[in-house]
Amino acid sequence: MTELFGPVLARGGAAAAVADQGWLQAMLDAEAALARAEAAVGVIPAAHAEAIAGACRAERFDAAAIGEAAAAGAGNPAEALVRALREAVGGEAAGSVHRGATSQDIVDTAAMLVAQRALKPLRADLGAAADAAARLAREHRDTPMAGRTLLQQAVPITFGYKAAVWLAGLDAAAARLAALPLAAQLGGAAGTLAALGDDGVAVLEAFARELGLAVPVVPWHAERTRIAELAGALGAAAGACGKVARDVTLLAQTEVAEVRERRGGGSSTMPHKRNPIASVCASACAAQAPGLVATLLAAMAGEHERAAGAWHAEWRPLAELLRSTGSAAAWLRDALDGLEVDSKRMRVNLELTGGLLMAERAAAELGREEVERAIASGRPFAEVVSAELLDPEGYLGSAGEFVDRALRAHEQR
Amino acid sequence: MTELFGPVLARGGAAAAVADQGWLQAMLDAEAALARAEAAVGVIPAAHAEAIAGACRAERFDAAAIGEAAAAGAGNPAEALVRALREAVGGEAAGSVHRGATSQDIVDTAAMLVAQRALKPLRADLGAAADAAARLAREHRDTPMAGRTLLQQAVPITFGYKAAVWLAGLDAAAARLAALPLAAQLGGAAGTLAALGDDGVAVLEAFARELGLAVPVVPWHAERTRIAELAGALGAAAGACGKVARDVTLLAQTEVAEVRERRGGGSSTMPHKRNPIASVCASACAAQAPGLVATLLAAMAGEHERAAGAWHAEWRPLAELLRSTGSAAAWLRDALDGLEVDSKRMRVNLELTGGLLMAERAAAELGREEVERAIASGRPFAEVVSAELLDPEGYLGSAGEFVDRALRAHEQR
Amino acid sequence: MTELFGPVLARGGAAAAVADQGWLQAMLDAEAALARAEAAVGVIPAAHAEAIAGACRAERFDAAAIGEAAAAGAGNPAEALVRALREAVGGEAAGSVHRGATSQDIVDTAAMLVAQRALKPLRADLGAAADAAARLAREHRDTPMAGRTLLQQAVPITFGYKAAVWLAGLDAAAARLAALPLAAQLGGAAGTLAALGDDGVAVLEAFARELGLAVPVVPWHAERTRIAELAGALGAAAGACGKVARDVTLLAQTEVAEVRERRGGGSSTMPHKRNPIASVCASACAAQAPGLVATLLAAMAGEHERAAGAWHAEWRPLAELLRSTGSAAAWLRDALDGLEVDSKRMRVNLELTGGLLMAERAAAELGREEVERAIASGRPFAEVVSAELLDPEGYLGSAGEFVDRALRAHEQR
Amino acid sequence: MTELFGPVLARGGAAAAVADQGWLQAMLDAEAALARAEAAVGVIPAAHAEAIAGACRAERFDAAAIGEAAAAGAGNPAEALVRALREAVGGEAAGSVHRGATSQDIVDTAAMLVAQRALKPLRADLGAAADAAARLAREHRDTPMAGRTLLQQAVPITFGYKAAVWLAGLDAAAARLAALPLAAQLGGAAGTLAALGDDGVAVLEAFARELGLAVPVVPWHAERTRIAELAGALGAAAGACGKVARDVTLLAQTEVAEVRERRGGGSSTMPHKRNPIASVCASACAAQAPGLVATLLAAMAGEHERAAGAWHAEWRPLAELLRSTGSAAAWLRDALDGLEVDSKRMRVNLELTGGLLMAERAAAELGREEVERAIASGRPFAEVVSAELLDPEGYLGSAGEFVDRALRAHEQR
Repeated sequence: MTELFGPVLARGGAAAAVADQGWLQAMLDAEAALARAEAAVGVIPAAHAEAIAGACRAERFDAAAIGEAAAAGAGNPAEALVRALREAVGGEAAGSVHRGATSQDIVDTAAMLVAQRALKPLRADLGAAADAAARLAREHRDTPMAGRTLLQQAVPITFGYKAAVWLAGLDAAAARLAALPLAAQLGGAAGTLAALGDDGVAVLEAFARELGLAVPVVPWHAERTRIAELAGALGAAAGACGKVARDVTLLAQTEVAEVRERRGGGSSTMPHKRNPIASVCASACAAQAPGLVATLLAAMAGEHERAAGAWHAEWRPLAELLRSTGSAAAWLRDALDGLEVDSKRMRVNLELTGGLLMAERAAAELGREEVERAIASGRPFAEVVSAELLDPEGYLGSAGEFVDRALRAHEQR
Repeated sequence: MTELFGPVLARGGAAAAVADQGWLQAMLDAEAALARAEAAVGVIPAAHAEAIAGACRAERFDAAAIGEAAAAGAGNPAEALVRALREAVGGEAAGSVHRGATSQDIVDTAAMLVAQRALKPLRADLGAAADAAARLAREHRDTPMAGRTLLQQAVPITFGYKAAVWLAGLDAAAARLAALPLAAQLGGAAGTLAALGDDGVAVLEAFARELGLAVPVVPWHAERTRIAELAGALGAAAGACGKVARDVTLLAQTEVAEVRERRGGGSSTMPHKRNPIASVCASACAAQAPGLVATLLAAMAGEHERAAGAWHAEWRPLAELLRSTGSAAAWLRDALDGLEVDSKRMRVNLELTGGLLMAERAAAELGREEVERAIASGRPFAEVVSAELLDPEGYLGSAGEFVDRALRAHEQR
Repeated sequence: MTELFGPVLARGGAAAAVADQGWLQAMLDAEAALARAEAAVGVIPAAHAEAIAGACRAERFDAAAIGEAAAAGAGNPAEALVRALREAVGGEAAGSVHRGATSQDIVDTAAMLVAQRALKPLRADLGAAADAAARLAREHRDTPMAGRTLLQQAVPITFGYKAAVWLAGLDAAAARLAALPLAAQLGGAAGTLAALGDDGVAVLEAFARELGLAVPVVPWHAERTRIAELAGALGAAAGACGKVARDVTLLAQTEVAEVRERRGGGSSTMPHKRNPIASVCASACAAQAPGLVATLLAAMAGEHERAAGAWHAEWRPLAELLRSTGSAAAWLRDALDGLEVDSKRMRVNLELTGGLLMAERAAAELGREEVERAIASGRPFAEVVSAELLDPEGYLGSAGEFVDRALRAHEQR
Repeated sequence: MTELFGPVLARGGAAAAVADQGWLQAMLDAEAALARAEAAVGVIPAAHAEAIAGACRAERFDAAAIGEAAAAGAGNPAEALVRALREAVGGEAAGSVHRGATSQDIVDTAAMLVAQRALKPLRADLGAAADAAARLAREHRDTPMAGRTLLQQAVPITFGYKAAVWLAGLDAAAARLAALPLAAQLGGAAGTLAALGDDGVAVLEAFARELGLAVPVVPWHAERTRIAELAGALGAAAGACGKVARDVTLLAQTEVAEVRERRGGGSSTMPHKRNPIASVCASACAAQAPGLVATLLAAMAGEHERAAGAWHAEWRPLAELLRSTGSAAAWLRDALDGLEVDSKRMRVNLELTGGLLMAERAAAELGREEVERAIASGRPFAEVVSAELLDPEGYLGSAGEFVDRALRAHEQR
């Protein structure tokens, strides 16, 4: 991500994990783990593995040179990295670098490591946003406000209920991200690990263990459901953030004014504005996800044992999706942390329709015809219907109970 | 789906589940379950519930009239259906129809029922395709063929290995679909179930039980991670089908000719063609998914307690996604059932490079320089390198083991 | 589109053009035009052409049977239609049906005819929506309202200006649709028109003329920029509609209440609601476009002389895109026709910030520091700053001129 | 784009145009042009304009600092840049910086400049790829090869014909890009140019002239059809590249071997491979476009006078789309420049079906029944049918004529 737009569009920790150094280290971690796994199985000497692992430090390698070599050579950065790593290792151990593996093994495994590392801050920000929503739900469990459907006031809800619905979405998205099956990839030239003779599966298992990744049933170089599941889960997380951000921008409208972001980005020439910048940015980041998910899904239909383009097509959108979703979560956390809630204004807005917001209840008690007559009379609804019937707090149904349920579920994660 | 294109683009049983009658019955099932749930909780008389449930048969209702009324009225079909249902029920029980619910409760719950019903044949077809892949993997566990990366022959694999990778993808997709959290939706006008007083949660729980759907923590009218997860899982399933279909079309090329679809769609004027129609159609159906998933993800950011458009925007892509993915699975099942495998041709193709396919192995044994010299010599590789080194069957690594692993995992689903 | 959801999601005339009968007639029109073109060039007897053309009436054919035959046979409806047409024509002329053509020629040319026919009502609705926007721009050229950026009141605009921006978008989209290069497709089995010997190009030219379509430089069976351009133009049109619809739903919010849709869909239990149903539905229809465009663009990378799936993958999204965009335009026309504008409420909302909306102007006149002091003083801005500086009508800049420009451009289309 | 993946995924000159320095300079160019336009109209002194223009050099500004300030402040980089520019200008002229404009004016206008500058190398690469296709079409006008539909050999074509179809697609895409309406944006705080009093339109016109951009009818801050048209045209261009790249990868398959990329990326361990790296990379880059276009189209439905997120959501995908499409064109140019065509192998492949490829012709001459009998006989087709009927060169129809047409059209661009 660029320096110019990055702070807005790539907020949070995921951005660093998907940056060049993150990818480079992840590829090197894969090479180191491969060497150690092969040493453990007896494919290469233990001393070679240690020499290799010792050289696998990203700061020693030149990302730009590797990138250029990738374009001039095999079309992916792993091959050039392997050459550089062999040089860095030197001696006999150089011959044990990358033994039996293929470029895609390294890039795919690195992608999983990158994802794992990007998901850590992403999930932390998502969790913090959920915690903030939980706080709002708890504090405003019984704060009445207008429920709005199709952007029209409908019947009363509580702000706590609204926050509980946000919370449930954020928690569901986080749970899905936590359950993702991130697995190592190791298959060699075409997936059979032929160059490892009979040791293939043993090396694969040791390799995955080294990295803290799952062992796949078969290599997944040509079977991309893992990428699809990761993409789908990130898309859902972005959407959950986008939903909350949209509600905040709507509640913060000048004419509604029920919430304000703490920071509230002003405008130098329009000092009265309290732009909900964090929510605006969260919305923008979340809006990246659907197209990126689509690109990753479309890349599933690759050719044979390594796709002629569809594999390369994953790198950009996977990184972008982690970054954008992480950024959406980071901005949303900002938006919800210390969100200023104006419960008085909520009450004022509840009364905007002169009691008509309670028409559903009145109709239930008095009959629909009676209510229609009252409305048709042209007299203020409040004069026609008893005050009790018009009390929003008397018509909140299970709102509080739903808040409690969402909070309990949140605490039991 | 149209009659003209439906048999090609909407094959399999999912199409019927998402058609008008399927939706209508699902909405009516939701109304019936609501009535029974409310009777169980004591909100309406048991006799009303039975009268309502008895009337909830799709064939009694006019989908076209309800559709027209939707456009002329509230903008969704539930309200018009409720009117028609009240009329069909008649008497006092009519007043107990749809008690405390809102249109979205009925449409959302119906969407889950429609999904559940569409997923049944879809998962059956996906499972049958996986079974066919498993048969191919078992039968051809040791049938050597060229592994191909970037559409170039690389090193040998077995056809069983290739089929095992297909199998793993189809099984992973099926497992994800089986684990989806399909939940009932009931929230009333703005989610609080206010019209049900203190009985809201009890009715919600009974409602979900009646329908065999999960009870959500909170109503999800405004929290669409469920839709996103369903979409993501369907997108992955479509992608898994599309991958296999692409491989089949590539293997069936005139110049490769390693497999043929049993049926093999001919051409009246080109009788020599054996078009892999089933795989072609599976590819076409699978290609629908990414865009549909994107549309559903983009619809997550709806406004407040009911979105001003984003909710309505889900109906078409959700139905299409179920239908297209189901159709991809149905076509793929056709393609794999009785796929004719030409193992002799696989062997012939393995020899196309005059042994160069074994260069990796030769390099491992003889050293890369030796191999490069041999290639540079211009003499056939087979003359330069010993026959044993060129035997593909001697360089299959863990292919067989991976087949066994995939088959075991398939059997343990 | 279904009967149940069609009236909401497939409003307007485009839906009929893309329905089965529309496709069937378009394919038959292509066959008739081919026969006439071939007769004109001397490839088949004129009498055959007339016999063929006479039989090319959709109502004589059974879409369902053709669809089933497509799935059982070649995988597309043209081949089965040709068989049925040959039967319907009978005699020697039957042998002249579809001479030298291939299924894709018929389906692709039919797709262009279907598009042309769907674009007619679509463009009419788009034009009517633009006319309505023009009326609003004219009538409210000088009606002040709050301009809103990031959903915060910023500085005054006029409602006429807002409508002029809508108008410019609708006009731009309509102009692009009007300029689309819809061309006939005729190439025979693999694009060379080999079966027509030396008459290929002459027949192609006559064929296109017969249909009122452009003559392509080369056949486009494998070159889909035409589909991409059509998709892009429809996507832009849908987006232009979606923008206006979103603004209407926002302006119609209970708390803003500056416009109301004439019809204003009520709610049986919430009689006070004036749901902006037409704009909600327009938004939902417009939201279909991005994913459909993506699917069509992704289908461009087809294999060789006819794609193994990517061609079939176009049929559904192309029809859907025409239908959804047409529906968005039809709903938007409804929304804008007779939109009720509450200029008094606009004035009231302008004053919500107690003059702060004019801070930019005040800062320009008095200096930013002065204004910041005034705001910091806590006193109402109106007391601190002169009334003249706070008059929104005095700070409308080029709003009126822009309205005039948009109206002139609209009239000169 | 990263250094690591950039050389593969961001080849060509577009990448530099959309990088930070490109954006920064474009924003500064917009500020300089604004100052000059305002001086020309008399809004600010000419000396101020020259002072401002003189300071507008990207290398003087710190992209990272501006990016950070954007995130900490208004949420977009223009505001921070304006502050830095005022400082750089100093003195009284500082007060004339950015007069009457808003951040979006600068960012939107810069986006058009960035697009214009990125389109230059992009169109050059696209043109060079088209030139290469034209050369191939000319040289191989009469080189017979198998036409392939659904990946099955169908009837003969020429390689020149195939290249002519590629050419037509590339030319169509290039023509569309050349016709794009790139316009300046200037509207001030909410589009009315209020701060410019009566001079708004005059300044807008001078501003656009300064930049060589079109004058919009009305400001387009809230009317994004321009972005949509740009996106659609880039999507079509990417698709046109993707199509050619796919064909090259298919023709380069080991089993087909009709073309080879000159460079032909080898593999260190598989020296026999001639991976079509350029086409693989072109495919990967082209595959980015559909999702990016979808994201841009979805962003059209922004709120009121500046979208609360949808505007920010455009920045990333617009830059990515220019870069990815440019990269696809650059790689395709590489792939086609010096593409090695093996016309002998084309002839060999033509004969793979033992003459069956000519069945259509034979059927036309001898009757379908005769041909079906011959095939059923099991005897080689070549023995049953006369050699003349089996000569591919005698069944090429209008292939040559289509090549000539495509070349003429290419030359007349």
